[in-house]
Amino acid sequence: MIAEIIAVGTELLLGQIVNTNAQFLSQELASLGLDVYHHTVVGDNRERLIQVFQQAWERAQIVILTGGLGPTTDDLTREGIAAALGRPLRFRDDVWQEIKGHMHRGSSPITENNRRQAMVPDGAIVFSNSRGTAPGLAIREADRLAVLLPGPPREMRPMFREQVRPLLLEMIGHGVILSRSLRVVGIGESALEEQIADLIAAQSNPTIALYASLGELQIRLTAKAENEKNAWDMIKPIEEAIRERIGTAIYGVDDDTLPGVLGKLLQERGFQLTVAESCTGGLLGSMITSVPGSSAYFGAGFITYSNESKQQMLGVPAAILAKHGAVSAACARAMAQGALKASGAQVSIAITGIAGPDGGTPQKPVGTVYVAVLSPVGEVVQKLALRGERAAVRERSAKTAINMARLLLLGEL
Amino acid sequence: MIAEIIAVGTELLLGQIVNTNAQFLSQELASLGLDVYHHTVVGDNRERLIQVFQQAWERAQIVILTGGLGPTTDDLTREGIAAALGRPLRFRDDVWQEIKGHMHRGSSPITENNRRQAMVPDGAIVFSNSRGTAPGLAIREADRLAVLLPGPPREMRPMFREQVRPLLLEMIGHGVILSRSLRVVGIGESALEEQIADLIAAQSNPTIALYASLGELQIRLTAKAENEKNAWDMIKPIEEAIRERIGTAIYGVDDDTLPGVLGKLLQERGFQLTVAESCTGGLLGSMITSVPGSSAYFGAGFITYSNESKQQMLGVPAAILAKHGAVSAACARAMAQGALKASGAQVSIAITGIAGPDGGTPQKPVGTVYVAVLSPVGEVVQKLALRGERAAVRERSAKTAINMARLLLLGEL
Repeated sequence: MIAEIIAVGTELLLGQIVNTNAQFLSQELASLGLDVYHHTVVGDNRERLIQVFQQAWERAQIVILTGGLGPTTDDLTREGIAAALGRPLRFRDDVWQEIKGHMHRGSSPITENNRRQAMVPDGAIVFSNSRGTAPGLAIREADRLAVLLPGPPREMRPMFREQVRPLLLEMIGHGVILSRSLRVVGIGESALEEQIADLIAAQSNPTIALYASLGELQIRLTAKAENEKNAWDMIKPIEEAIRERIGTAIYGVDDDTLPGVLGKLLQERGFQLTVAESCTGGLLGSMITSVPGSSAYFGAGFITYSNESKQQMLGVPAAILAKHGAVSAACARAMAQGALKASGAQVSIAITGIAGPDGGTPQKPVGTVYVAVLSPVGEVVQKLALRGERAAVRERSAKTAINMARLLLLGEL
Repeated sequence: MIAEIIAVGTELLLGQIVNTNAQFLSQELASLGLDVYHHTVVGDNRERLIQVFQQAWERAQIVILTGGLGPTTDDLTREGIAAALGRPLRFRDDVWQEIKGHMHRGSSPITENNRRQAMVPDGAIVFSNSRGTAPGLAIREADRLAVLLPGPPREMRPMFREQVRPLLLEMIGHGVILSRSLRVVGIGESALEEQIADLIAAQSNPTIALYASLGELQIRLTAKAENEKNAWDMIKPIEEAIRERIGTAIYGVDDDTLPGVLGKLLQERGFQLTVAESCTGGLLGSMITSVPGSSAYFGAGFITYSNESKQQMLGVPAAILAKHGAVSAACARAMAQGALKASGAQVSIAITGIAGPDGGTPQKPVGTVYVAVLSPVGEVVQKLALRGERAAVRERSAKTAINMARLLLLGEL
């Protein structure tokens, strides 16, 4: 079954925002086993919107539009698609009551314009919007479906997951589709692909898809079956086969995050964490504390950017700085030790390196980073040779350091 | 003149990556005064690629394609567009030498496949690629132009700016187009729009465009004139009119960043900066040190997430914590003072607040944040009431704090 995505909004054509809705919906549609062959972006122009929709309606069974459902006269999607499908719009009082109810909770005044959002094409399904005033709409015609969703991602995403997905599942018919994501770190995309290429090739249900983002990978397993139990039963052996091959490179599943997983390990073991950062300048601490509730295991960190602060705040011996320099295994280790002592924590992560663009030497080029992790169950000091620009070197350093701490606590380093 | 953007790549249709190229090119084309009415994404499929291209070629004078110029047989853009325009491909030895030269510098082996990248449609212009193996191509036909660019943004962007933009300017004819961006912080998008609505409405050359991103705005002035001097002469009075209205909300121009601008002010005044962070947990330090060369004015920072660390590392009096709590003006001030003392810096920024999702109370709801800035030229303590989720509260806190330090040093607070 073929699906197509249309984003409506002149702000996209001016480059004021990026079309993340198309990415989100593409992932969701792929996980439902639907093929997507085209994305289109069109502005707030009635004629062009209708042209683009009609073309999509000819070549796909499911057409999903985002944006253009607001209260102003610029917002043309509702009227345009109703006209294209020959469905008159009617004012629906139940929808209007819901919109008013939502606006009473918010701070914006209710205007007559908002009444336009309660106009519903004949025979359309209405999706309620818990986070905004624009309801979503779906129009079914024989074996085809047009879906109209609000543009703001925080409104569109839950509406799709909670209300549109079940409708699509019903349309696809017979059974359920379930996905499980394995979150992977510390291995490159092509290396991972090589390691599981035969599994990917051998599988069509569950499917195995790879997604990459800075320093991390995601393996998504999607199974189609008659019921939930059967779907999980199909996913399980594939997940086990992948785990056998790449083991602890899988740090979590689904919505797990690397700092979140480290946080859980620390809490289970009753350890407090501290950080000592040179080239990352606070980024590691920022990642650790991005986790809600991280105060349970993180109390203090040290940003020691200069040599003086390494000596004063962490007691790094002048002799180490003189002999090995600030970018060295010895300095990373001394920083981690100093942070333990100064904070009273049990686990310590230290990072020191050259993020660039300047400061590199032939012996220590840009991207040379030392990470030290000390803990009651062991310690590790590693030299990293990272590629990329300043921001990428810093981000990879911090993520690698968190992963080293995770592996050390797991007894895998 | 109408331009259209086509991105080629199945990875976009699967949602593995987001189409940032369309955003970049839309901004660039808008700054050239070109109208963009459609973006399209199509997969690595010859037939569909040619269909999509032919449609764009009918409705636009300039069609820009990104992606699908790689060495593998999946990469169909070169062959597809050459076929659509009836231009045979010929092997060009000069292009091949350049590709080989690039590959010798890199680490990937040269394969026979790479020879495909030296195939050039008859009469095409070749754009050299300093950052990858895929050359760009342009095919001119009467008053129309097809431009083929590599998909990776780090290759595409400089190729567009350095080689495609001049070609488009020449095609648009007569004169130059220059842009200047004013970078704005501390004012909302709708408030800004209201303040300069009459200027926007009154202007067609230079044009005035607004772009928003988390906690920041950009006003882009674009002038079309016979020569550079005239273009700047047209931009200048508009810039001055805007500056008169929103004054120091403009923190910089073009590629300036907020932490970069603060860094310059610190260096001019010979001040060292330190930070004391509670709810931002290192994010402020991370932003400060995102600037290359920030070690000239930043040596040390303190992540004091727990009450104990605020007392031990910064000497915050227990009485303040007991009486006012950690999220209070008094605590923010004491943190900033303690950081000055412990670091020997002259300027200090402290942040303490409730980032959420938990920890809020009726008196201090999530989003309550106190920022203190101390300096030899004065001091300021502010209470912020921020909206949004944990990550947004943290990011806005850090940006607002940097802006407060900037304004204080400028004598504007």
